[in-house]
Amino acid sequence: MMMNFNLSIAAIMRHALTVAAETEIVSLFADGNVHRYTYAQAFTRARRLANALDAMECPEDARVGTLAWNDYRHFELHYAVPCSGRVCHTINPKLFPEQIAYIIRHAQDDVLFVDPQFLPLLESLQAEIGCVRRYVVLCAAEELPDSTLPNLLSYETLLAEADDDYHWPDLDENRASGLCYTSGTTGNPKGVLTSHRSTVLHGMAQNMADNVGLRALDVVMPMVPMFHVNAWGMPYNAAMVGAKLVLPGPRVSDAAVMVRLINDEQVSFSLAVPTLWSNISNHLDAQGGEIPSLKRAVSGGAACPLSLIDAMGRHGVALENGWGMTELSPMGSYNRHQPWYEELEKAPRGQQLLKSGRALFGVEMRILDEAERPLPHDGRSSGSLQVRGPWVRSGYFGQAPSEGWFDTGDVATIDPRGYMLITDRIKDVIKSGGEWICSVEIENAVMAHPEVAEAAVIGVPHPRWSERPLLIVVPRHAETPPSHQELVTFLEGRIPKWWMPDASEHLDELPHTATGKVSKKTLRERFGNYAWR
Amino acid sequence: MMMNFNLSIAAIMRHALTVAAETEIVSLFADGNVHRYTYAQAFTRARRLANALDAMECPEDARVGTLAWNDYRHFELHYAVPCSGRVCHTINPKLFPEQIAYIIRHAQDDVLFVDPQFLPLLESLQAEIGCVRRYVVLCAAEELPDSTLPNLLSYETLLAEADDDYHWPDLDENRASGLCYTSGTTGNPKGVLTSHRSTVLHGMAQNMADNVGLRALDVVMPMVPMFHVNAWGMPYNAAMVGAKLVLPGPRVSDAAVMVRLINDEQVSFSLAVPTLWSNISNHLDAQGGEIPSLKRAVSGGAACPLSLIDAMGRHGVALENGWGMTELSPMGSYNRHQPWYEELEKAPRGQQLLKSGRALFGVEMRILDEAERPLPHDGRSSGSLQVRGPWVRSGYFGQAPSEGWFDTGDVATIDPRGYMLITDRIKDVIKSGGEWICSVEIENAVMAHPEVAEAAVIGVPHPRWSERPLLIVVPRHAETPPSHQELVTFLEGRIPKWWMPDASEHLDELPHTATGKVSKKTLRERFGNYAWR
Repeated sequence: MMMNFNLSIAAIMRHALTVAAETEIVSLFADGNVHRYTYAQAFTRARRLANALDAMECPEDARVGTLAWNDYRHFELHYAVPCSGRVCHTINPKLFPEQIAYIIRHAQDDVLFVDPQFLPLLESLQAEIGCVRRYVVLCAAEELPDSTLPNLLSYETLLAEADDDYHWPDLDENRASGLCYTSGTTGNPKGVLTSHRSTVLHGMAQNMADNVGLRALDVVMPMVPMFHVNAWGMPYNAAMVGAKLVLPGPRVSDAAVMVRLINDEQVSFSLAVPTLWSNISNHLDAQGGEIPSLKRAVSGGAACPLSLIDAMGRHGVALENGWGMTELSPMGSYNRHQPWYEELEKAPRGQQLLKSGRALFGVEMRILDEAERPLPHDGRSSGSLQVRGPWVRSGYFGQAPSEGWFDTGDVATIDPRGYMLITDRIKDVIKSGGEWICSVEIENAVMAHPEVAEAAVIGVPHPRWSERPLLIVVPRHAETPPSHQELVTFLEGRIPKWWMPDASEHLDELPHTATGKVSKKTLRERFGNYAWR
Repeated sequence: MMMNFNLSIAAIMRHALTVAAETEIVSLFADGNVHRYTYAQAFTRARRLANALDAMECPEDARVGTLAWNDYRHFELHYAVPCSGRVCHTINPKLFPEQIAYIIRHAQDDVLFVDPQFLPLLESLQAEIGCVRRYVVLCAAEELPDSTLPNLLSYETLLAEADDDYHWPDLDENRASGLCYTSGTTGNPKGVLTSHRSTVLHGMAQNMADNVGLRALDVVMPMVPMFHVNAWGMPYNAAMVGAKLVLPGPRVSDAAVMVRLINDEQVSFSLAVPTLWSNISNHLDAQGGEIPSLKRAVSGGAACPLSLIDAMGRHGVALENGWGMTELSPMGSYNRHQPWYEELEKAPRGQQLLKSGRALFGVEMRILDEAERPLPHDGRSSGSLQVRGPWVRSGYFGQAPSEGWFDTGDVATIDPRGYMLITDRIKDVIKSGGEWICSVEIENAVMAHPEVAEAAVIGVPHPRWSERPLLIVVPRHAETPPSHQELVTFLEGRIPKWWMPDASEHLDELPHTATGKVSKKTLRERFGNYAWR
């Protein structure tokens, strides 16, 4: 006897218009230009865009692809496309070209909205992506480049010709709203379809006070790109609370630019992978400067070393771990720093800060042993992590859905307070003498060494133990790399004795995947025949 | 392609067991005894209770009534009843006996769970509530009183005989979970059915950081009883974040007892109607003492005078306005105090603090003029407040559902930032010379007078203006009531000139409804033939 009321992204728009019509959305472009307007203006343009999609006869449930950095036009696409019933398909431009072509073909994108810089890429793929009927370049009419792509027009021309009156339809809450492909290290990318329902529930859970917990007074800057699972939800979640949004464009790796933007716009909350936080921390250490407005930030997408959390802490920023996957829309757990952490001794405090956090309300987690038996939440037993909940995928786009829990492929522990810690990827676990060695924990420990810039641990076949850990480090000073014995001495007492790597190697840099994670697959290919002494 | 996963109260239980198994639930009883146990123990007992309901052949979709104060047994009922598929029907024992009999008959309660003190009441109604097959008294076996009621047994006997293993079924999220009757001033009480879905969404929205925003570190004490729309959600919402819960039993009107409990249990957040906050504030003023752990509190259920917000502020408590109705599960808006309030001048700051707050994300609001045209959100235009959303009722229990927006019966303004202010009940609006006078705003203004303890303004027929406002005050000192002229002088500049009450009367106390609101209906009956001078 409660209203049968669909959860919808359109409701996020309506809410933002009620509580934050005049609140700003600020976009920084590569050339240094800053664009600013309000939520009211953004959603007026979203209505124009929806009319334009109708006018170009984009089918009402079509996939609409985007190849774009974080700016206001990409924000508008995140509303106009799903709220008119279509699917907003954000494409990662850093993938290999053949993967991009595969994804566009697999999704059967009807229209592509692209930043000018990605036109040459698409031109090179033109023969393979015939499904795309129209190309819209995210620029003004006078900025439209010459191109061999057919049916090309500028975004601003498209909007200028459209009416700004549009009636958002009342859509079934289970209707698809977004599509994002995972770039697994094996096989073809797989598409994860989000729905209006999953997007709204994911946002409400993230915005609960003990999780990400955005407030109207926040100034939110996602450095994580929208093509990484909708910037972890920010285009929707900031609007849901009426927070000011700062969209930093393509220059997120330029720490000086980001520091200036944080100060100019008084950013209070930001999200990025550890590498970008490391850039910013190193920049502040080297150049001086402060970022006093930034109180909290999220590190996600890869394991965050404690040294980085400590370094950001010295700059006044509580760097909090979030964990997720594309298959979880993406967030599954969050480590909101609690006052009681401050009362812990140094070592247990560090362990607590490194945890992936507690499951967001709505996500349920369990860990299983090799016989699929549930393991206790004692903070020590590690097993395969499985999850379920209303924003966890049941299948991949174009494949049959599966029943029951989703196997994350991660190995984790869960402690009695519900804090989960990823100890490894199941395929990276090192099986030694019938027991598991967790590569991530060794990496976390060795990253605290002052002469180690980056580290990876892989299992390498061993005649006696089946596998043994090999430590691969990128030295901070290439001319004076730490010796194996020095690293072993450092690790003693920090990891169990039998986990101690049997050898160490140095590299100038580690191989990374398109999403910025260390590619252990590449490392295993290179060191698979390692000759143990 | 997201999991088809039901929102459910059982999921709140599972989450609390993961993040807060050892967190305490503390109950205070009338005799001063304190009971404490953990969420893990509470939910073990809830499983026993579900088995006991099955064993007594309580139908799987039956209404199960409760007449009880806030304590751990009532908490257990809030989980065992809905999570086994039944409907938890909380009955307000302060209603007139004939209303209670009507409600029990209308709901067709199969079993009643009652505090021992309410047995005489039920015995007097026995002939009228034949639908009730079993009575369970919320006490230990040795505390079971003699009674004329049939099939009477103690709660602890019931639980002792039941198994603590129970498999909570996966229920459709739209299944009814709770039932609460509104006690309107006209006609029979009407039942509002909540569902698992509405309960979970309402809780998630309340727990968003800018709303009630509970955190795991909070110690939450609902003084508002669970029979007032589930203590505004607290039995569910505290568990949803794993916060410690303090259940204060029947002695909520005893300020000395509540102050001691706040300090003993380090309560950080509490909820009550204004009268109870007034009790506590007066007690602290008169007796001294401090409540340093209590940082924030909610005032709801009736308009909260600014003088009370200020008084609680002097005691270190941010008293925040929440607005809701039984028909909204109950919360519709919340006025989370924002840092920018502190920068306002005294008068606008007071106006801001008095607002009912912004709509919770999920609730949509509009205000309409008498021709049903939407009014602007300019903070000045007042009109009929209508709402919609997934935790707004579409109909009443036993009646056909209605379509579209729910008319709250309130009159409100909405400002450009989305802050809503209730200016009146539509039936209490004073229509004078074709314009509306808002009785609540006059009441708020006059309550700031130091010699006024309570005030009400009603419209009384007037030969020339159709109606004019009559001010009725309860003087703080009965022997020296403020004169009409004194009150008029005080109100000058605080309300529009033409709103000025034409006369004042004194009463020793105002008539109140069963839910603690001023009964303007009674006042209008008494003063309806008021002889204007």
